Amino acid sequence: MPRFRIDIEYDGRPYAGWQRQAGQPSVQEAIEKAIAAFSGEEVTLRGAGRTDAGVHALGQVAHFDLSRGWKADTVRDALNAHLGMAGEMISILGAAAAPEDFDARFSAKARHYLYRILNRRSPPALDHGKVWHVARRLDAEAMHEAAQRLVGRHDFTTFRSVQCQAKSPVKTLDRLEVSRLGEEIEIRASARSFLHNQVRSLVGTLKKVGEGAWTAADVQAALEARDRAACGPVAPPEGLYLIRVDY
Amino acid sequence: MPRFRIDIEYDGRPYAGWQRQAGQPSVQEAIEKAIAAFSGEEVTLRGAGRTDAGVHALGQVAHFDLSRGWKADTVRDALNAHLGMAGEMISILGAAAAPEDFDARFSAKARHYLYRILNRRSPPALDHGKVWHVARRLDAEAMHEAAQRLVGRHDFTTFRSVQCQAKSPVKTLDRLEVSRLGEEIEIRASARSFLHNQVRSLVGTLKKVGEGAWTAADVQAALEARDRAACGPVAPPEGLYLIRVDY
Repeated sequence: MPRFRIDIEYDGRPYAGWQRQAGQPSVQEAIEKAIAAFSGEEVTLRGAGRTDAGVHALGQVAHFDLSRGWKADTVRDALNAHLGMAGEMISILGAAAAPEDFDARFSAKARHYLYRILNRRSPPALDHGKVWHVARRLDAEAMHEAAQRLVGRHDFTTFRSVQCQAKSPVKTLDRLEVSRLGEEIEIRASARSFLHNQVRSLVGTLKKVGEGAWTAADVQAALEARDRAACGPVAPPEGLYLIRVDY
Repeated sequence: MPRFRIDIEYDGRPYAGWQRQAGQPSVQEAIEKAIAAFSGEEVTLRGAGRTDAGVHALGQVAHFDLSRGWKADTVRDALNAHLGMAGEMISILGAAAAPEDFDARFSAKARHYLYRILNRRSPPALDHGKVWHVARRLDAEAMHEAAQRLVGRHDFTTFRSVQCQAKSPVKTLDRLEVSRLGEEIEIRASARSFLHNQVRSLVGTLKKVGEGAWTAADVQAALEARDRAACGPVAPPEGLYLIRVDY
């Protein structure tokens, strides 16, 4: 069975998330339908990151198998044609033949997320649904400094959704960087894998630091509490982007 | 009568354009309604640039008069509150008291537009409706070189919509720059004022150069023809942004 890897961009707003769910639109189902439309085959698409409702992707990766070979460019163009006709907010950036042991989820060595905060008084018009709007001025440097307490191998129970299905709450956070670009604050997070809601939980907590309510020491204490109740508010999905997966 | 200047960002997609039109949603009408909702006054809003249907703004400027004074920040916040409740894709970036001889349209010394082309094989998902998608590779350097033939004071009849109401087709184009940033081509145009559809006509013509169909000499010949029929295709509205107005 030839295996294909696809790289995917999507606007998360119309979807209940990556994963197929009965009665709700999902990115996975939309692409599976497009695959069926061009190939006639019903496949299960496996994605690298199960993004939540409203979360965007600039570089999601997925794989699937077909019973016969196709030119990779044909796969990309046929999927885009079917997704476009269906009015989906999904674009296939690239398709490639993949080795049969390639697994979009389990072969991933690193996942990279970006979280965008629009930090100005006025709400977003052009980036509505694409950023978290925070009207109050945030101190990005203080946020960055506090973030460094979270980098490394830790028990991230505090920053994990109660629905998280991961076996262990221990993860290694390789990077958590906060920087200001004019009116926008960008938070970049990288790890081999993340717990459910981990990035949004980290961002919500760092926002408390940015507004001066929490210190870096408070963030460290929250981490060490290993208690979901110690977490700051979870940041909303609209600012989050899965930007790249490394293999 | 106290006069106010407002700076405005909007997503052009839901609107038939800046200007009020019977039976169709316009940016002007949406803001006039918000002004009436907070102040109780029916005003006519005057904008610096009458953007077409689907054209966006990062820095449109407009003015209006109220019979009594308000704190400028209150005007901004009240307008944003009413626009938000009405579900409009419009944000008031700032409001300021303006001298009574300030006219958003006639006092403008320069208008700056940006045109965004997404130049890649795959269609946009996140920037759908915000860029012109051109799948075929364009030569941005050749476009920039040809664009320089258009800079300066010329009769722009070729690049003017037949509906244009300007008295003279002679305008001074101060800047027309084309540059590539990864998958995106940005075209920046500046002038004291533009003819109707001028930027989109210039961009559509430069695209012919980018794909190798026209040379810089062909562009110059089109300009010198002073004939609308000599123009390349008009670029679609979704890539165009009014980014700034200088006074």
